[in-house]
Amino acid sequence: MVSNEFYFDARGEKERIKRAYEALKEERESKRVGYYNLPDDREMVQKIKDFCDNSEFIQNEMQNIVVVGIGGSSLGTKAIHSMLLHRRDKRINLFFLENPDPVDIEKILNRKSKTRRVKRYNTFFIMISKSGTTIETTSIGKFLMQEYDFKLDSWAFKDQSAIITDEGSPLDKLANEYGLNVFHIPHNVGGRFSVLSAVGLLPLYMAGYDIEALLEGARAMRDDFFERKMDDLVVKAMFYVDNKDRYPMNVLFSYASEFKHFNEWYVQLWAESLGKIDKDGNRVGLTPIHLIGAIDQHSFLQLIVQGPLNKTVTVLKVKDFENDMIIPDISIPYLEKTNFVNAKEFQELLNAECDATVQSMIDQNVPVDLLEVDRLNEYNAGYLVMYFEILTSLAGFFLNINTYDQPGVEFGKKILRKRFGAE
Amino acid sequence: MVSNEFYFDARGEKERIKRAYEALKEERESKRVGYYNLPDDREMVQKIKDFCDNSEFIQNEMQNIVVVGIGGSSLGTKAIHSMLLHRRDKRINLFFLENPDPVDIEKILNRKSKTRRVKRYNTFFIMISKSGTTIETTSIGKFLMQEYDFKLDSWAFKDQSAIITDEGSPLDKLANEYGLNVFHIPHNVGGRFSVLSAVGLLPLYMAGYDIEALLEGARAMRDDFFERKMDDLVVKAMFYVDNKDRYPMNVLFSYASEFKHFNEWYVQLWAESLGKIDKDGNRVGLTPIHLIGAIDQHSFLQLIVQGPLNKTVTVLKVKDFENDMIIPDISIPYLEKTNFVNAKEFQELLNAECDATVQSMIDQNVPVDLLEVDRLNEYNAGYLVMYFEILTSLAGFFLNINTYDQPGVEFGKKILRKRFGAE
Repeated sequence: MVSNEFYFDARGEKERIKRAYEALKEERESKRVGYYNLPDDREMVQKIKDFCDNSEFIQNEMQNIVVVGIGGSSLGTKAIHSMLLHRRDKRINLFFLENPDPVDIEKILNRKSKTRRVKRYNTFFIMISKSGTTIETTSIGKFLMQEYDFKLDSWAFKDQSAIITDEGSPLDKLANEYGLNVFHIPHNVGGRFSVLSAVGLLPLYMAGYDIEALLEGARAMRDDFFERKMDDLVVKAMFYVDNKDRYPMNVLFSYASEFKHFNEWYVQLWAESLGKIDKDGNRVGLTPIHLIGAIDQHSFLQLIVQGPLNKTVTVLKVKDFENDMIIPDISIPYLEKTNFVNAKEFQELLNAECDATVQSMIDQNVPVDLLEVDRLNEYNAGYLVMYFEILTSLAGFFLNINTYDQPGVEFGKKILRKRFGAE
Repeated sequence: MVSNEFYFDARGEKERIKRAYEALKEERESKRVGYYNLPDDREMVQKIKDFCDNSEFIQNEMQNIVVVGIGGSSLGTKAIHSMLLHRRDKRINLFFLENPDPVDIEKILNRKSKTRRVKRYNTFFIMISKSGTTIETTSIGKFLMQEYDFKLDSWAFKDQSAIITDEGSPLDKLANEYGLNVFHIPHNVGGRFSVLSAVGLLPLYMAGYDIEALLEGARAMRDDFFERKMDDLVVKAMFYVDNKDRYPMNVLFSYASEFKHFNEWYVQLWAESLGKIDKDGNRVGLTPIHLIGAIDQHSFLQLIVQGPLNKTVTVLKVKDFENDMIIPDISIPYLEKTNFVNAKEFQELLNAECDATVQSMIDQNVPVDLLEVDRLNEYNAGYLVMYFEILTSLAGFFLNINTYDQPGVEFGKKILRKRFGAE
């Protein structure tokens, strides 16, 4: 269950709201944009389940999963994993190798330690690259092959690895030639919109999450939207775009440390989708900012409430952490002033702080909306993913841009290849 | 060694530059602002060393340090710890309890696991609160006392804990009454400027870092500044402030995963210091944004190079990671296109990506400067801390604000106490 309450006055003409619904409907029905239909891809879910459930290695030996992938290939999985980690029974470690930073790679693999965690015999490797030639990902992949002494045509490699890529990509061709496990990302699903495809579903299912509930939450949100029950969401996107000069920044202020990576996922989705040259040739965009409460109350909040009023804020709150940890009813000499939270649950303190922050921002005329999930679970995670994806598509529509491409990230890639004399 | 190169045209009138130097000199000499002198506080360093070196428990039993503190009480220590973690010999775990999020607390303490890490007999607890009554910190502190069965007047508690707070604060009074270990934060050093006080030095020294080198780096930077050798830095702050409407956001784009928490430290420092009502009653401020390369190249960079030109970017680069991990010279069928980095070091790829990103931003007229450290070590960490602190003070001077207070973060605190009927 997710609810959304608005503390700013945003209304939209019916006609514009209607046009936005229709634009996204057209994206979906024409199959130009594929993420809307990911929750219905039963074939993919079945393939993932069959693969995992029938693998001797995954069922009995696997203790670690290493996901090799950068940007859209890892952030979504990381987001859901860190949001729900505490609820899992299964104790499978999930590691992400994203950055070609050698210090970071060594640290994650715990490489220099005698009690090295990631071992050849207990680890499953997933390499994810939509294009199939992402230089960071292939470089780390080559390193892992050498480090763990895997040969492309060895039995062990086939058993302990999978590739997720576009059909027909170089990686896909490689997988086909060597009989490696491969899962496809639909061509019409961009990397940053791909978490509900095999990109997220395979590692999350392997790690013990309920991917059916994840997809169910996403589906519920999507269906509500396409049944035109979400005028509020349309109006929110419209407000952001209409006021982009006044409020160029959109803050996601999430009240739970578990949302740290979800925040990062939101940032990449919003920034890369909406920072574009529009159809009239103008640079447009909205800048995402991510905060964690209560931590950032002690710093960034100062800028929000007393700095320039140039940010909208969405507060993300968890009603029930399903955790009854209590602040002990201890009175400590000289600290009696802090006793007002004694015997309260920690979550009550955190959520009261959240409410207080919302109020203090409203008091200062910051446009705030509150997005509340009843608990941290797969259903709500799926709902939130779809919520922000559709919000992004709506903002892209109102900005009059192509929400789904990323020509700017290619600039650096070209320069890089030139520097290495590769073209 | 740190160098700074500018790829945008910023010049400043000599007179304004001089006034800025003088303003900071006045802050320092009048002792209104204390952080400038932290690198010279030999007494504090000696007290920390004596305390740790003479403690049987710290020398022989301690395997974990738990720092309880939020915002400025933890971010700086975290920043330096995660920047240098890979270089340490000593294997002491450092945990941070910041957020009163019960799920997060349980996860960090690994509370439900049979192989629980943080045990009473192997852990040192440091509670940090400048005011002495930070509600998140005292609540978590009470919880830890109950969880680990510590009594205020017990021998074990005295041996295994320390308090860091302002002299005369409620926490200080408590420590004095019960003979607990206590270290003081100078009154004229704000929380977010306190990492080079006991706040950072105690846990960092206990965890095995070279705090002398850390302070030496900070001192070198500060002395260069007060010897008026850093016009560039003054001009950078001036450029940011003079162009705050055109470029309301200042990005720190750090090319190493090790800078993740340093980035977060920068964000709180910049946001909380500079988001203010200025002396003429106007809301002013500059918004910090933090990115990690190469990861954010695959997303946020799109917004920087094709979205509105409303951001300055500082790129932070490490010349030498002191790591020779190599991309193996393996040619994989269908992936021959990726061979251009074969047999190169990973750090060469990462740094070439950094250069390519810098170039692609310059090409799009983004104001960029490059801050380069020769390696990740204590000296450079100290230098960087002082660099950004002085940059913040300079920007605050040009903004005509009080850089060192935070009236806005009190708004929410008052509402919170009211909600609990505490006032």
